[in-house]
Amino acid sequence: MNESTQDPTIQSKGKLYGIGAGPGDPELLTLKAVRILKECDVIAFPNTGEEETARRIVEAYIQSKPTLSCHFSMSRELSERLACRGRAARDIEILLKKGCSVGFVTLGDPTVYSTYLYVEERLRSKGYDTEIVSGIPSFVAAAAAAKVSLCEGQEPLHILPAQGNALEGMEELKGTLVIMKAGRNLKRLLTKASSMESEATLIRRVGMQGEAIQKADRAQDLLPLAPETPDYFSILMLRPTNHVPSSALSQKGAKEDSL
Amino acid sequence: MNESTQDPTIQSKGKLYGIGAGPGDPELLTLKAVRILKECDVIAFPNTGEEETARRIVEAYIQSKPTLSCHFSMSRELSERLACRGRAARDIEILLKKGCSVGFVTLGDPTVYSTYLYVEERLRSKGYDTEIVSGIPSFVAAAAAAKVSLCEGQEPLHILPAQGNALEGMEELKGTLVIMKAGRNLKRLLTKASSMESEATLIRRVGMQGEAIQKADRAQDLLPLAPETPDYFSILMLRPTNHVPSSALSQKGAKEDSL
Repeated sequence: MNESTQDPTIQSKGKLYGIGAGPGDPELLTLKAVRILKECDVIAFPNTGEEETARRIVEAYIQSKPTLSCHFSMSRELSERLACRGRAARDIEILLKKGCSVGFVTLGDPTVYSTYLYVEERLRSKGYDTEIVSGIPSFVAAAAAAKVSLCEGQEPLHILPAQGNALEGMEELKGTLVIMKAGRNLKRLLTKASSMESEATLIRRVGMQGEAIQKADRAQDLLPLAPETPDYFSILMLRPTNHVPSSALSQKGAKEDSL
Repeated sequence: MNESTQDPTIQSKGKLYGIGAGPGDPELLTLKAVRILKECDVIAFPNTGEEETARRIVEAYIQSKPTLSCHFSMSRELSERLACRGRAARDIEILLKKGCSVGFVTLGDPTVYSTYLYVEERLRSKGYDTEIVSGIPSFVAAAAAAKVSLCEGQEPLHILPAQGNALEGMEELKGTLVIMKAGRNLKRLLTKASSMESEATLIRRVGMQGEAIQKADRAQDLLPLAPETPDYFSILMLRPTNHVPSSALSQKGAKEDSL
């Protein structure tokens, strides 16, 4: 234990909030996010290239409030990434110690592919009070924009990042597949998915300027439509053609009340 | 095509909104959900046993507005379920034809385990204008309440309902497992998960009265704590002990800036 863990006054100090800003549309902020943004003394943003988007979403509610930009390295070097997290937590701790409440804004939701929890865990372990304010994850907003169910009844839903090994064996998974950040490897990904009996929906920049939705009965049909310039905010949804409720609906002999 | 598909005046008719009310806390409504609730002429609720919760979440914004209760059967008989969906769509269509806008409220998000899309598809195919307003899914709010990441970096996330065959082979899945509606089979489920190298978090009634969170280093440690009375709104999160970023953090030799 270090000095600050033993600080008996820490309970009366500032609180850290992880605030989900949703995918892009400021109207998708929750009432709670708005209230906490207004109440916090300082607003922190992760500086990872998405900062400008996050600022734009919340700007109406923070106005002239002081902001803190926390640099998070995307480097492959773990030591560099850890150094950034440590620095962000230390910068925030200085504010918390002064009694300031800090709202750390993340795109989407703070528990879904966010760097926020790294920082929170460090400060929580030192006795600081923390709270997470949920936001709409981008894949949820993408499903809404495309008017496609992510899952129904007893179907599983799999969220897979297009990076790393997460896509290994994806063809074997039952249920809907949502592939995040599908921009860079889109053509390879569509080719990989072409053996699957799935409807494919590509949603780019949901809730942002340039939002685009493309649907096809099979993944390979999207290949000619794949943009030359990859878009980081791209989500590919693969929904089994024979997913339970749909096949049940078209089942022969099923008596359905017509409208 | 039937008569109403060809109705040339349909474009000027009412619009259907699927509104996600989030998991329970009215403050987790989005700004957009609040606006649409206020603007809609009639508010529809799925009557599936969760209706009372959904009504309580939105009641401050609908006040004396007319409401429509749509009965959805939970019967195993497909014909009975289909009859309910058809009836709900027909009841809503009568309102849309009159030019009323209808807000159909669902718990959580309308694209995540909801009956809403069944109704929407029917009305959309007849030419009615529809829109989905995203809500915070219960598993997102559960992760926030438990202060646990659902996924980080390149980790997959799997959402599995505790019913049906969705849990087959769950031990082989990489990444975090979120098991929905885990109440009824909780003991069997915890036993099944006991071979997994995963931290287990059980979140009951998130955002509702009686919210409870139990964490353990392994699933079997939660067994003695499993309540005698199963709770429908129970979510079990299984997070690999050696999930990538954590193991990276504790990696020997990794130089970390201390706070």
